[in-house]
Amino acid sequence: MTAPSLPLAEFVVGVDNVIFSVDTDQNRLLVLLVQRQQVPFAGYWSLPGTLVRQGESLEAAAYRTLAEKIRVSNLYLEQLYTFGEPARDPRETTYGKRYLSVSYFALVRFADAELIAGGECPVQWFALSTCPELAFDHNKILAYGHRRLCNKLEYSPVAFDVLPEYFTLNDLYQFYSTVLGANFSDYSNFRSRLLKLGILQDTHQKVIRGAGRPATLYRFDREAFAPLKDKPLVFV
Amino acid sequence: MTAPSLPLAEFVVGVDNVIFSVDTDQNRLLVLLVQRQQVPFAGYWSLPGTLVRQGESLEAAAYRTLAEKIRVSNLYLEQLYTFGEPARDPRETTYGKRYLSVSYFALVRFADAELIAGGECPVQWFALSTCPELAFDHNKILAYGHRRLCNKLEYSPVAFDVLPEYFTLNDLYQFYSTVLGANFSDYSNFRSRLLKLGILQDTHQKVIRGAGRPATLYRFDREAFAPLKDKPLVFV
Repeated sequence: MTAPSLPLAEFVVGVDNVIFSVDTDQNRLLVLLVQRQQVPFAGYWSLPGTLVRQGESLEAAAYRTLAEKIRVSNLYLEQLYTFGEPARDPRETTYGKRYLSVSYFALVRFADAELIAGGECPVQWFALSTCPELAFDHNKILAYGHRRLCNKLEYSPVAFDVLPEYFTLNDLYQFYSTVLGANFSDYSNFRSRLLKLGILQDTHQKVIRGAGRPATLYRFDREAFAPLKDKPLVFV
Repeated sequence: MTAPSLPLAEFVVGVDNVIFSVDTDQNRLLVLLVQRQQVPFAGYWSLPGTLVRQGESLEAAAYRTLAEKIRVSNLYLEQLYTFGEPARDPRETTYGKRYLSVSYFALVRFADAELIAGGECPVQWFALSTCPELAFDHNKILAYGHRRLCNKLEYSPVAFDVLPEYFTLNDLYQFYSTVLGANFSDYSNFRSRLLKLGILQDTHQKVIRGAGRPATLYRFDREAFAPLKDKPLVFV
């Protein structure tokens, strides 16, 4: 790092979390939002975030602010992207410091996630398809998070972390369609590709959904997947 | 973002670049390092970085510091990861501000990259296999960058951006082996998988390398690849 010829920028650093879930009953991709009570953007919905405190790691700040808003088992936050260009936060003008945001990302199982009411700010799941205009540049952060989620679904078995233990191939297809958009692949290609990977265990049990024919229930075969874990694979 | 109950951390923000290249003649994976002239870590080699100035975006700072050290066509920096835990930089104790680093990443074509001599700090390519102990947490940042590079090679056609226009399948295999490590795949699997993707154009020209038999020269077929661009693919 060389001696600067212009003054260095001073920064306040925040973290913002893009928490996705999939409501498999209604085939909706959901994102967790909180309603801001303070200026700037009072009344606007935003990603759950906070400013980093002295002695606190970025990750710790991200987990801290979520712990006040949602109870969920096995929450694993992954760093997403850092947004730090000038003027992304109107408080920069007021306080003369730039506000940088390190964003984090997680996909959580809908049935396991309990929203905590009675906190400082209202907390709510929003369908991504009807997401309002958010505070700051949070729509941009959210769009970035959605691209990462699609990417993870394509290249990793993350779907099986949040689906119910037993599922039909159609359940799985619906899940992928909900996140990646309809027609991401035709059903028969999807089905043959996934079965070929050899990571779905046929339980030899059938289930009837609606008026359809009985469909086989599968489960994710973690033992069969173990030797493939570090190999590049495509899941869609 | 909620009102904090402990004081907020104050930050200085820097950028650090992990610039890789592959010397295909010698099958070496290289990383660009600069030798620090100032405390802390005077005399140590480090990733080329700088502190962000007022009004400057993170990306602009990353490009600025590289422009003083290397001339290369089509440099495209991609954000890698943000390192911001307390005490990662000894200057935190001196100045009472935390030093956060946003790292950037690029793979450049070795033949196109010209190092700029006579600047403030010596600049040099180092083979990753003989990389010294670096200043700050830069070995950790470098390791993270190497993982990202392997990942990109596996899932994207980035190799063809830096290989010569015409190459044999063995050249390509050597390139992948240099980055991913020997035995990442056996040659015949690699060969058949890549040919099956249909993105390599047979030029019907042969070349003789050393004492071997004449080998076919291929080129990357950008037209054939265009419809596959947004589909998830595996290249190894």
